[in-house]
This record gives sequence, C-alpha cells and structure tokens, in this order.
Amino acid sequence: MRHDSDSIADSHGRVGVERWVDGDATRAEDMVAEEVPAALVYNGFSHAVMMTTPQDLEDFALGFSLSEGIINEARELYDLEVVEHPQGSEVQMRIAGERFAGLRQRRRAMAGRTGCGLCGVESLDQIAGRPLGTVDARRGALQAGALSRAQAELHARQHLFHLTGAVHAAAWCALDGAVELVREDVGRHNALDKLIGAVAAHGGAFGDGFVLMTSRASYEIVQKAAAVGIAVVAAVSAPTGMAVRLAEAAGVTLIGFARGERHSVYSHPQRIH
Amino acid sequence: MRHDSDSIADSHGRVGVERWVDGDATRAEDMVAEEVPAALVYNGFSHAVMMTTPQDLEDFALGFSLSEGIINEARELYDLEVVEHPQGSEVQMRIAGERFAGLRQRRRAMAGRTGCGLCGVESLDQIAGRPLGTVDARRGALQAGALSRAQAELHARQHLFHLTGAVHAAAWCALDGAVELVREDVGRHNALDKLIGAVAAHGGAFGDGFVLMTSRASYEIVQKAAAVGIAVVAAVSAPTGMAVRLAEAAGVTLIGFARGERHSVYSHPQRIH
Repeated sequence: MRHDSDSIADSHGRVGVERWVDGDATRAEDMVAEEVPAALVYNGFSHAVMMTTPQDLEDFALGFSLSEGIINEARELYDLEVVEHPQGSEVQMRIAGERFAGLRQRRRAMAGRTGCGLCGVESLDQIAGRPLGTVDARRGALQAGALSRAQAELHARQHLFHLTGAVHAAAWCALDGAVELVREDVGRHNALDKLIGAVAAHGGAFGDGFVLMTSRASYEIVQKAAAVGIAVVAAVSAPTGMAVRLAEAAGVTLIGFARGERHSVYSHPQRIH
Repeated sequence: MRHDSDSIADSHGRVGVERWVDGDATRAEDMVAEEVPAALVYNGFSHAVMMTTPQDLEDFALGFSLSEGIINEARELYDLEVVEHPQGSEVQMRIAGERFAGLRQRRRAMAGRTGCGLCGVESLDQIAGRPLGTVDARRGALQAGALSRAQAELHARQHLFHLTGAVHAAAWCALDGAVELVREDVGRHNALDKLIGAVAAHGGAFGDGFVLMTSRASYEIVQKAAAVGIAVVAAVSAPTGMAVRLAEAAGVTLIGFARGERHSVYSHPQRIH
C-alpha cells in the first residue's frame, strides 16, 4: 500500500514579503500554506466547518467521519463530493440512514448550544461521558528501530512542509517502519484525520501499523487514534498529560520525542521491543 | 508593567516513561504539560469548553471574552470565579447585561447547531459575514532590532516549556522589544487569549506594543489580535495564507520566521523600520 497525496497545487500560494537580515530589508516572494474553511455536510445537513489545508479533502472527510464516530466503517459512507465555493469547500456526503439518525439525535440533544474547542461539547459533564475507543492489546508490536526508519522516510516525503514550513504531517507506517501513506495539514488533528481516511480508503487495517506525527501529541490525537483502533502513536515532540492518561486508558502505546535513535514511551511499553 | 504568571504547579505533572537510546530502554520520570477542560460560563450559562493548560485561567477567560467579541472592554466583565471540578475547571463570569443579551441572541441564531473548528460556525455563509477588527495604522511602529531583543528575553521566560517541551508562549512586548508579560498554553490561541487578558487586566494599551508568539501564525491568531487592536504580531514560525490575507485586510503587521536578526514581514511592512 503506497498511494500519493493529491497534487499540492491548491494547498499553498505565493505572497510578497519583506525579508530582513541583519537590519536590511529586501522584497522577495514566499510560499505559504493555505488553510481554508471546509464544511462537512451529511445527507444535506451541514455538521461542522473545519479550517483545513485544501488537499486530500476526501480523505479528510472520511477520516473525520470515522474518528468522530459519525460512521463506524468506511462502507457506511455511500458517496462524497467536494463542491468549491468562493469562501471555501463543501464536502457533501451521504451516509447510512442509521448513522445519520444517530447524528441527528446527538445534535438534537445539544439543541441551542454551541461547542468550542471540543467538538460539540458545551459543559464539563458532557466530556466525562464521552466514550473512548480501546485497542487490541495483541496488535501493533514493533521493534524500536522501526521508529527511526519511519522518521527518515517521512522527512523525505513532507512535500508541503518543505515548501512552506507551516504544516504538520501524519504518516502511516508498517510495523517494520516503512512509510506507506503521508498526509499534511496546518492542523495536526486534520493531518491525522486525512491519514485515517486514506488508510481506510485503501483497505488498510489499523491494528497492523503505527502512526508517526511530526507534531506534539495532544489528547485529540490519542482520542482519534483510539476511536479507530490504532495501537501505536509516535510523535516527534512532547505529549500532554491528558494524552498520556487517555492512551493509558484506551490501550494505546504513546511515544514522544521520537528523534533518530531516541524516543520515550509514555504508555503500554510492552509493544516496543 | 511586568507581572509574573501564576504558579506553574498545576500546569504540569510527573509521569513514568520508558526512555530508549540506541536500542536500550531505561525507566525514568518525565514532566508533561497538562491540558484540562475549562468551561466558560457567562451569567450562569455555559458557553464553551476549551482544552487549556490550567494556569492563568482568569487571564484566559478575560482574553477569550475580549478576543471573541463577547465583551468590548475589560470593565464589562464584572466578576470572575474559578471553580474546580474533578473533570476540569469552570470559570464563572458575570458580564454586563447588554453584552449577555448579545451573546444569547448570537446563540439563539445558532439554535440546534454545533460548531466545530471555528467557534460556533456551522456553514460557510456564516464565515464570510464574520466581522473583522481593524487596527490603527498610526500605532505600533518599531525598529527591527526590537524583534531580536524580544526573542532573547522571551526564551529565558518560557518556564513551562523548559520543563515539558509541550507548550507555546505568547509575549507582550514594548515597542523597544522589552518583554512585559508572558503566558503559556498547550494551544497557541489559548496562549494568546491569556496574554490578551493579562494585558487588559494590567491596563495595557494594545496599540503600544507587539505580540511575539513561539508558534506558527494561523488565521485565528490574527483574528484575535485584530479584534482587540494589536497592530503587530510576530511569530517564530511560518504564517498561513489565510493569516496573511486577514492581516492585510485588518491592518495588522504580520511577521513570520522571527529568528535572531532575521524575519519576514508579510503585511503592512511600513511599521517596521
């Protein structure tokens, strides 16, 4: 399994810039990554607008639908069309009737409320009750050397980052460290959603590989990984305390500071040998 | 004006970790930054839950209220109390009746909807109509050397970052580059909200200084800065295309890749000389 990302033509743009070095300014051009609103529409109803890098929106919409528990399997997403508007993109999806009924019910329960920072959550009571996926303890064992191999392979494939310096990457890696899929986005959780969608679209099994992120590991990364059954998440930078606790509870092996031959394992270290 | 942050005691914790170097693992302890849910409650009504680093929550709540346009001036926030719950913190605020009526009206207009990724925004049409603050063109002029001075001073004061490696910092700097206030958070927009609240609480004038962020500059950073009239935003890392366009439209000078004696000015370069 190795499928390239969409063309990156729409995902960045050229801007004029005044570049200062040691007190002197010169006019130059620079490449910047885009982030544009993408509305996720299910069976005709607009559910959410996310700021995303406009590349691999099909993967993003499928991955978001899975990692947020709107659908349980990729085949419950019947079809998907991206419609461009002047102010952003609209991803029109048709999902299984039972799943759409579940989504409507969830939304009715939140009538008159707005969410902020946490998807649709308004009060602390709602967070405590949020279900957490758990992963299979027998899946995802790997050798430590796979982590350094994956880092080297990922670095070579961060195309948009090399142009703009402004995006995170998420990589899907075989257990031997071979990088199979890479997705990039201004938002780390969006990069992971794009990756989850790409893995699902290509028939990958979430228990048979691991995720490598170029970012920090926050709670939302672990929550999305656990929701689809990803057993091992490695991040180049630091985890947060809540990410560690979620990973412990969900059975996810969480690795931070993955840099060359060094890394730190924060939960379920038995998978790494 | 120079006021320290809250104690960082609650903002990080100690976790056990398996540290691998060149194929060998040892047990160790590590410090991780916390991110916990904080509910923002206005006049008894829960408005939003944000994942934040539990430090300077008073600054955060005031800054969020200002940068999201819930109140227009700090004095419209009559009082504020942080109540701790097992699952997170609740910030109970009492705001001016007129502002609360405005907030209720905004929320009624969104009845039955949830927002995701953008605060309370559900469809693309709502984004296009979102008002953008504009800043005074005559404020905020500074010399390029102020940027390198501010970076050096900020680096020495990123206390939580030095412990955990997992948080962003936002600094409020005088126009000569002296760092007056520093706030840290797992989320870059939260770090900025904490800083905005701290500046307002200490009677600072947003036109008489600049913001330095250790992160990238995304659209939400520029939007929040413009909302309160901050004229210059400098980021250590890259801006996004939407951040550049927003800064151009709002009259904000946006600086990226601020690293020592180098930086790039993406909009309104006339303020930098």
